[in-house]
This record gives sequence, C-alpha cells and structure tokens, in this order.
Amino acid sequence: MEKIAQRARLASNALQCATNDHKNSALRAIYDQLVKDRVAILAENEKDLIANKDTLSQAIFNRLSLEKKFDEMLLGVLDVIKLDDPTAKCSLARKLDENLELYRVSCPVGVLLIIFEARPEVVVQISCLAIKSGNAVILKGGKEAHNSNVALFGTIYKALSSLDTSATSVIPPTSVNLVSSREDISTLLKLDKYIDLVIPRGSKSLVQHVQESTRIPVLGHADGICSVYVDELADAKKALSIVVDSKINYPAACNAAEKLLIHKKVAPTLLPLLATALFNKNVTLFADPEAFKLIEKNNLLKPALSDSFETEYLDLSLAVKVVDSLTEAVQHINEFGSHHTDSIVTEDKDRAEQFMKQVDSAGVFWNASTRFADGFRYGFGAEIGVSTNKTHARGPVGLEGIYGNGQAVGWYGKGGDENGKVFNFKHEDIPLEKVTKKFN
Amino acid sequence: MEKIAQRARLASNALQCATNDHKNSALRAIYDQLVKDRVAILAENEKDLIANKDTLSQAIFNRLSLEKKFDEMLLGVLDVIKLDDPTAKCSLARKLDENLELYRVSCPVGVLLIIFEARPEVVVQISCLAIKSGNAVILKGGKEAHNSNVALFGTIYKALSSLDTSATSVIPPTSVNLVSSREDISTLLKLDKYIDLVIPRGSKSLVQHVQESTRIPVLGHADGICSVYVDELADAKKALSIVVDSKINYPAACNAAEKLLIHKKVAPTLLPLLATALFNKNVTLFADPEAFKLIEKNNLLKPALSDSFETEYLDLSLAVKVVDSLTEAVQHINEFGSHHTDSIVTEDKDRAEQFMKQVDSAGVFWNASTRFADGFRYGFGAEIGVSTNKTHARGPVGLEGIYGNGQAVGWYGKGGDENGKVFNFKHEDIPLEKVTKKFN
Repeated sequence: MEKIAQRARLASNALQCATNDHKNSALRAIYDQLVKDRVAILAENEKDLIANKDTLSQAIFNRLSLEKKFDEMLLGVLDVIKLDDPTAKCSLARKLDENLELYRVSCPVGVLLIIFEARPEVVVQISCLAIKSGNAVILKGGKEAHNSNVALFGTIYKALSSLDTSATSVIPPTSVNLVSSREDISTLLKLDKYIDLVIPRGSKSLVQHVQESTRIPVLGHADGICSVYVDELADAKKALSIVVDSKINYPAACNAAEKLLIHKKVAPTLLPLLATALFNKNVTLFADPEAFKLIEKNNLLKPALSDSFETEYLDLSLAVKVVDSLTEAVQHINEFGSHHTDSIVTEDKDRAEQFMKQVDSAGVFWNASTRFADGFRYGFGAEIGVSTNKTHARGPVGLEGIYGNGQAVGWYGKGGDENGKVFNFKHEDIPLEKVTKKFN
Repeated sequence: MEKIAQRARLASNALQCATNDHKNSALRAIYDQLVKDRVAILAENEKDLIANKDTLSQAIFNRLSLEKKFDEMLLGVLDVIKLDDPTAKCSLARKLDENLELYRVSCPVGVLLIIFEARPEVVVQISCLAIKSGNAVILKGGKEAHNSNVALFGTIYKALSSLDTSATSVIPPTSVNLVSSREDISTLLKLDKYIDLVIPRGSKSLVQHVQESTRIPVLGHADGICSVYVDELADAKKALSIVVDSKINYPAACNAAEKLLIHKKVAPTLLPLLATALFNKNVTLFADPEAFKLIEKNNLLKPALSDSFETEYLDLSLAVKVVDSLTEAVQHINEFGSHHTDSIVTEDKDRAEQFMKQVDSAGVFWNASTRFADGFRYGFGAEIGVSTNKTHARGPVGLEGIYGNGQAVGWYGKGGDENGKVFNFKHEDIPLEKVTKKFN
C-alpha cells in the first residue's frame, strides 16, 4: 500500500508540469480506449450484476449497471476535455517593487484518495477530473462493483500507457491507482506523508468513519439536511414550486430538502396548500404541534418526533415547523441543519439578504430550489462532491510565487543594500487582464 | 469554557451582518481606547517584565516588552482600518438562466481560536484582523505575558462595549475573548461544534501538539525549512545577495533559509565565494562531503550531520549540499523541506519555471530572498500566520448563493414545468466588473 501511495506521489510531482494539451490528449486516449473496450467492460459489469442480483436493493442494482450509462459516461469524458484548465490560473498579481513581482497561481493539490460506493462509472469520472486538474488519484470503489472497477481502471491504465513519451513523462500511468479492500483504506488513511486530500463519497457512516480515522484533510459532508424557509413575505406560487421540487425532484440526494420552516403569519393560509401539494406527491409530513393544527388530517400527516428536525430522510418525508420570525428560522437552520444548502422564499430583498448573510451554509438560495446545489447545474462541469468544510479552497489551491531580480529583504529597511541605498515596497496591483505571463 | 465558545459563536453569527463601516468604527474605538489606556497597559506590562526578569532569555524578554512597540501597535490598528473589506467580495457570477443567478461571495470563517506565545501586542493585532474579517476570536497568550494580555484585552472589551447599539448588535463585545490556561485549550480543542479554525502561532512543538489534539482544521506550519537553490545558470552577484539575506536577515524567522543547494557545475567557483560571505556574517556551514571539499577550512565549516538537511536551525547555521541537477534539487526540497518557501537563483526562465512548478511549497521564488515570504512584504497588511496547508482557502472562504425567481429543478429536464415547458441552463458568466449587486 505504501508503495502505491509513493508511486502516486511521484506521478503527482510529474503532473505539475503537464500542460492542458498533455492532459487533454490523455483524456482523449481514455475516451478512445473506453470505446474499444466497451464489450469487455460490460461483460465484467455483468459479472457484478449476476453476483449481486439477490442481495442488493433495486436502486443500488440500477446504480451498479453500466449498460445504459455507458454513452453518458463517454460524453462525460468529452465534457471534461472541454473544461478550462483549472491550474495555472493567476488570481493575484502585484508589483512589490521594480523587477519584484508577486503572483498567486492555482496549482494541483497533489495526491487525492477517493472512496466511493456502488456506481462504477465514478472510476472514469474521477480519473478524468483528477488528470484535468493535475492531481494523482488513488481510487477505492465498492466491493459489489469490483469486476467493473477493475475493468474500467484497466482501460484507463492501458490508455495512459499508450501515450507517447513526452506525455507519459508528465502524466505517468501511475497517476491513476485502484485499491480494493477496506484494510487498504485503513493503511492509506495513515499515509499523510503522501496523500493530500481524502474525498469520501457515500453514506454518512462512511464519511464519519473517514473523518475520525485520518489526519489528512477530508473534503465532504456527512449530512445533507437542507431547509426551505417560507417567509411571511413569500409569493405563494413560488413557495409551492420550490418546496415541492426541493423535496420530490430526487429525494435520495443530499441537496433534497428535509425541512420546511414557515412563518406564522402565512402558515394558516399557505401551509394547507403546501401540505396538499406534498400529499399529492406522496410526501409524509412530520409536523410540529403548531403546523399539525393547521393541516387537514391525512394518513401522510404525522406529529413530529423528537429527532424529526435533525434527520436526513432521503425519502419522501419532510419535517415541518412554524416559526415566529426570520431570526428563529435562521437560528434553527444554523443549529439543526448541516450547513449544506438552504433556501428562503420571500419577495423582500432585505429579508433575503439577511437570510443569505446569516445562514452559515455552503449554499444559500433566494427563491430557488435547494436541488440547484450541484456542480453540473452551477456549470462547473462534473462534480467531485459537495463540501461543507469552511476552510478548504473551492477549486485548485493558490500558490504564491515571486519573480525577482536578486533582491534581498535587507535592502528594504534601515541600512539598505551594499551601497546604502534603501528600497521601498511599491505594492501596486497588476490588473489581472494585463498579466501576460503564462503559468503553464 | 464551553460557555465562552458558545458566546463567541453567537457573536460570530451577529458579525455576519457587520458592514465595513461598523467594523472600522469598532477598530477606531479600539485605537482611541488604547491611546487612553497606554499608561495603565504599560504598568501591567512592567509587572510581567519584572516577574520574568530572571528566567527568560534576552530575546524573549525583548519580545515581551511593549514600551518601544506601543506606537507601532497603534499604527497597526490604523493599517487594518485602511485595508479593503475582505468579506462580501464576489469571485464568481454566473447567469444560470433568466432570473436565476449564481454568485460566489467571500464570507467570514466564523470562530477562530488563536494560540500564541510571548508577544502581547498580538492580542491587538489579531483582534483587529478578526473584527475586520468578520470573525469572532478566542485568544490564548503565553503565561509570561499574562498581565499585559489581560490589560490589552480589557481595553479592547471596553472599546467594543462603548459602541452605539447599532454597532454592538453586529459587533458584540464578546467577539473577542481571552482565555489563559493550558487546560482551557484542551477543552476548547474539543469544541468543533463552536470553533471553525485553530491558528497556533509559536514553537514547532506547540503546533504539533495542537495538530494532534483536535479535529478542528488547523492553519499553520510546524517547520520552516526553506532552501535556496543556486542553479548552474545563476548570476553570481544575485546568488550572493539572496543566499546571505535569506540566512542572516532574521535567522529566527520561519522564512529564513536553512539549506543551500548548489549545482555541481558552478559549485567549484561560486561556493567558495558564498562560503566566505557567509563566514563573514558568522554563519556556520554544515557541508555535505562534496561541498566540504570545495570550501576552504575554517572554524565555521563543519561536516553535515545525518539530520543537517532536516533541521530548522533558526540561528546562524546553514546546511550546504552540491546537487547534480535541477531535478535533484527539486526532489531534495520536496522530500526534506517543509513546503514553506523555496527560491531558485538562475538566469534561465525555463529552469526557473520548472522549479516553480515542481517545488511543492506555499511560496516559490525566482531570484528573490526567501525572507520576502511575509504578509507585510506581500502587501497583505498584517499577517495572521503562514500556512503550508494545501487545501484551505487563502483568504476568506467563498460561499455560493443563488438568486432565483421560484425556479424548480424539475423544470430543467424531461417534463418541464406545470405547463410542460422545458427550461435549459444558460451558464453565462457575468463579468465581475459588471456585478452591481452589493453583498454587504
């Protein structure tokens, strides 16, 4: 295991010098090889499907099957090719003095460890995103997809090995690695010397386990407890479409709403309408006493339980609460939510802005469904995961570089240089559109 | 302790709504109160100086004394007032569809826990930076500065309490907190529910202890093992000024050079000159066998020990190694350095760029002293610490917000809205200079 991590680290060092053309030619080769290996890959996938036919739920079984998703997976590779190079982007340029310039430039993170569950196409998705962003990657998939993962990894490895030397010297085939057992992961989680970032994609228990077992930074979120707050100044029609869509568009997603908070002034008129719309879509409501009184009795109406407002249902259930004020809604979301995505429905700009400033979540929406919280919908291309971390970089991490001309710090202070000339910092910002320097 | 952390969290929630004017008026009040309390603060500082007269080294004693630094400390407050508001800055604006816009806006981190050692003026520096960036802060200073810290904290608290209600409602006096014992810290390091980021400023052992005892993200670096690499195409004059300055300008700093790597082609001519210049400044050289042979014997010339290339000397010592190639220099720096700041001296642009891409450090310099790695010299105003983390945000962390008009995700796909109208994403970037929306 340590050897794999070490190899990935070496590959990551080489990748620092890969240009966008290098990276795109590697992605193109992966695309071509996937097209060639299609039949063989699907045959391996079939083995997984047969082996797991009796033990997995229909939903997980569908996620495991590659046949219908193969074309989409191929298109995904082409999409990644089209993305801008995320590295070598300059976000700060400053003239510290004549011939002494500071640039902050994005660069790859290094070695990523990505742990995921059922869906085997993730092997391709993540490998392509890693290469495009100049990162080496170690993948660990679910055991139910073992044959599919090995086949897809084999195809990627073959593609990378087929590149010409100028490309393999900066994108070695060892840029992508696959490990398969739980024990491998325990070992890898200790190798903070080689691995820079862990991204667990999967169940809450997987994410929590990873967070508790490593000193490597973990990108991700354990819970997705999103709320829609319907304000006293909400437009009823918008409230209906946003609440219903946030809950039912794809209830198993982390960005689906699990809670509806509604202001007491509009609850008597609006809540019955919302409840009816939700009941029509087969949603069970767990209502607090105030809300319970306002909703007509129905099989799908239940009193809220003690943990209803801290539960990630991931199904057609929704906790409902009447609040006295915008402030109460914000406090409730900050205390019992998961800092993922929360939305306010209101026609009042000031109230929307107060909500957006005070709610401490990765995404705060005004008059839009929580389901929009997604890399594809944001136009970010594919998405590697949603993070609720507050202190990681979103996108490649910047690096400061100084381009000088032999300057010593000692010149900038009493005494000056060897001729006694004292230098002073200029600290002039260089407009980014005027930066002609190329960083790759 | 938990109560203090909880109070800081509440203050942090309020701070989300503080405008730049609010924050600057708070900083102005702190400045005025410091001017008024000067005599009393210095009297408390005198107590610390007397109590520690016999036990502390001269260097630490000097750091403890406030008298000569008081005016500079006051100027520091005014500098922070002058800084741009780091929050509410928009770094991404995108039109997803008509009336559906995505903005990424910087916002405060939340609650910071800052642990520092001897220098009491840090209480003022950090409190001001925290307020300016909209963060609540819990400070823990060294026990040798206890009376000074309490006095400075008291002044800040008085100043914040004196603000009018419109300001205290968004910048409560509990935005700044002081704790004093080691045990307090152990308790606080467990409170990841309330604290978002820990910044230990001090010895390597302090930083390592903190990193090992908490699940809260830690910003900082344990080691500062910086290198200067003198390339085969180096200009001798620049090499001399950069190597000497990197070592002697302030040897106790984390950005001082601890290692000199020199290409074998120039070592025979250049290394003797560099050695002489360093010996003249009283620098002891720990030379590898190759380098040892090239340098004339001298009391200050020692053979490198087994750990010489992994040591943060923090004094007038420097490890010296002859390397066969640029690649060997890069590998040595990545393997034995601390990913802080490293510099290449060369006249060749391609070689400089290879070094800057491949060296995996927070700062990579071309023909400039490593000592330039500093917030003040970068023109960042004061500096809260240097981070070697690769996956935290440098600067305030972005937050995605969507401004919609009632859109449901379901409209963007098969079926469309309730009238069957299918929506498509536009994903048009809005040029940042055209963003008229204000985020504070």
